[in-house]
Amino acid sequence: MSPFDENNFNATVAALGEERLIAAIRRWLGDATPPPPAGIGDDCAVLPASPRAQVVTVDPVIHGRHFDDSVPPRAAGAKLLKRNLSDLAAMGATPRAAVVALTLPPRTRTRWLERFYRGLAACARAHRLHIVGGDIAQDDHTLAASLTLIGQPAGARLLTRAGARPGDWIYVTGTLGGSLSGKHWRFTPRLAEGAWLAAQPEVRCMTDISDGIAKDLRPLAPPGARPALDAPAVPVSAAARRAAARDGRPPLDHALDDGEDYELAFALARRADRAAFARRWKKRFPGLPLACIGCFVSTQKKLPASAIDLTLHHGYEHLRAANPASHDRRP
Amino acid sequence: MSPFDENNFNATVAALGEERLIAAIRRWLGDATPPPPAGIGDDCAVLPASPRAQVVTVDPVIHGRHFDDSVPPRAAGAKLLKRNLSDLAAMGATPRAAVVALTLPPRTRTRWLERFYRGLAACARAHRLHIVGGDIAQDDHTLAASLTLIGQPAGARLLTRAGARPGDWIYVTGTLGGSLSGKHWRFTPRLAEGAWLAAQPEVRCMTDISDGIAKDLRPLAPPGARPALDAPAVPVSAAARRAAARDGRPPLDHALDDGEDYELAFALARRADRAAFARRWKKRFPGLPLACIGCFVSTQKKLPASAIDLTLHHGYEHLRAANPASHDRRP
Repeated sequence: MSPFDENNFNATVAALGEERLIAAIRRWLGDATPPPPAGIGDDCAVLPASPRAQVVTVDPVIHGRHFDDSVPPRAAGAKLLKRNLSDLAAMGATPRAAVVALTLPPRTRTRWLERFYRGLAACARAHRLHIVGGDIAQDDHTLAASLTLIGQPAGARLLTRAGARPGDWIYVTGTLGGSLSGKHWRFTPRLAEGAWLAAQPEVRCMTDISDGIAKDLRPLAPPGARPALDAPAVPVSAAARRAAARDGRPPLDHALDDGEDYELAFALARRADRAAFARRWKKRFPGLPLACIGCFVSTQKKLPASAIDLTLHHGYEHLRAANPASHDRRP
Repeated sequence: MSPFDENNFNATVAALGEERLIAAIRRWLGDATPPPPAGIGDDCAVLPASPRAQVVTVDPVIHGRHFDDSVPPRAAGAKLLKRNLSDLAAMGATPRAAVVALTLPPRTRTRWLERFYRGLAACARAHRLHIVGGDIAQDDHTLAASLTLIGQPAGARLLTRAGARPGDWIYVTGTLGGSLSGKHWRFTPRLAEGAWLAAQPEVRCMTDISDGIAKDLRPLAPPGARPALDAPAVPVSAAARRAAARDGRPPLDHALDDGEDYELAFALARRADRAAFARRWKKRFPGLPLACIGCFVSTQKKLPASAIDLTLHHGYEHLRAANPASHDRRP
């Protein structure tokens, strides 16, 4: 469904006008937004005191980039929140409240936007957070929404990207690659898994995989070390294999570079009992594969011949020059 | 200065690439962003616990709408933060931390973006808040930045838009109208004034004037009442008079409808000692005019013949149909 209607003015947000649109958004969000000043309707939203540390993150969805007309509008709304939930999962945090800044062309269909917000609201309810505020601005070209999510630690510890040491093992949840065929909006943010991992003392650091593991592992590497990944250990998804069959690139390339996996990657202490860790994981998350895909090795040492040469893999690049159509593999 | 360079690829953010751009942004922000995980560089930014209530708001600046090539890029960056600071001022709050979601075409000049961020950083330092995180996404058409600002009460009380009663007096700070000629980016957010007003028990509710006082007063009106404004009392700015001389509309129309004044409007209790209040204001803020422009009257009563007919004034409308150029009075 295209978000735009060029012919029927009455079906667009321009016909509705700003004040009625804001009233409609409050209706579409329903109990996912509390009454003001805790929710939409004042200069700021008022949040209760937070006796614990807080986390904050921001991610957008842009039409033509993070979703296209093949993605149901409800799913696009849910994806906006889920992208941010994945960032919280990567620290072992749990969500509290969000604000949404919407940029929309006047020719946007009201019906499309209703479904977008209803999908966002359903996802917010499922994760027990409130949409507390937002902004609407007009733009003649771009339909986009940016969500800022505030959360707090799920347990005693927040996991950052720092803390790995040379020799630590590298793990990843789920399977990787080929997200364009659907996972980029059908994914489940790994909140329960992130909270559990943050509570395991042998887990040293964590991130989520949004730009491809080849790229997202870089910030986890300790100073003076780099990832040595074992190709057969990388959990290549069925979607990556299908993409490879279509475009002739190796399935592993898709797994390393496609991005939008929204899985978790983390480092496990070198001396940890990996077998016991794997058993605890399997008992807690029986449906989600966990793979040890390599380790961090000192840059002083030569990489094993079997290790993947990550200098040949770049993950997703957010700024592409020249002809975007020929480069951009996102929808 | 245009934000775009169509000819010299090497001058654009596409030549820099995403990772070097993020490193550059951290450099441009300097000590306005702390090291991760408190600042830019992890999945989320970590904020300290907040023993008091918090406030959160979000506002964007979009090229061609909130600023154009005539606005210095440093001023556009400062405006992004100041728009949000004005929302905090309107509740009597003080800022703590912000995140910025940037949407930019690959042809954006690096030099332009540097100045934008340096202007944002200088404004953040002046107001003692940190830019703690952000996101960069590509869009082929629209250059936009959305900032989410988190704050806390400056004193014991947060002022919402609710609380006025029929008979309460309506006040406004500064002068109104004609912001397009420069005030829309040269304004000073009224943070000290908002904090002081929130501490005065006779002030019942408050908002800032972003869409024109004709529109922004509506949410302050108590149930069963409407504003009765006295035309000669409305503080018409010199810029509104100049705009009127150019376009032939009455100066008062500009004062009521132009918007982007970023002044404060509030209700004072009907029985308050207005003369004493005005003296306290003048002592505390000698440089900023304060005007009592009318009061809220019951919808049961007829408006005085001298009152402005606000049904003829609509303020700024954010969603305009058809030909935006003919409607949109913003730069």
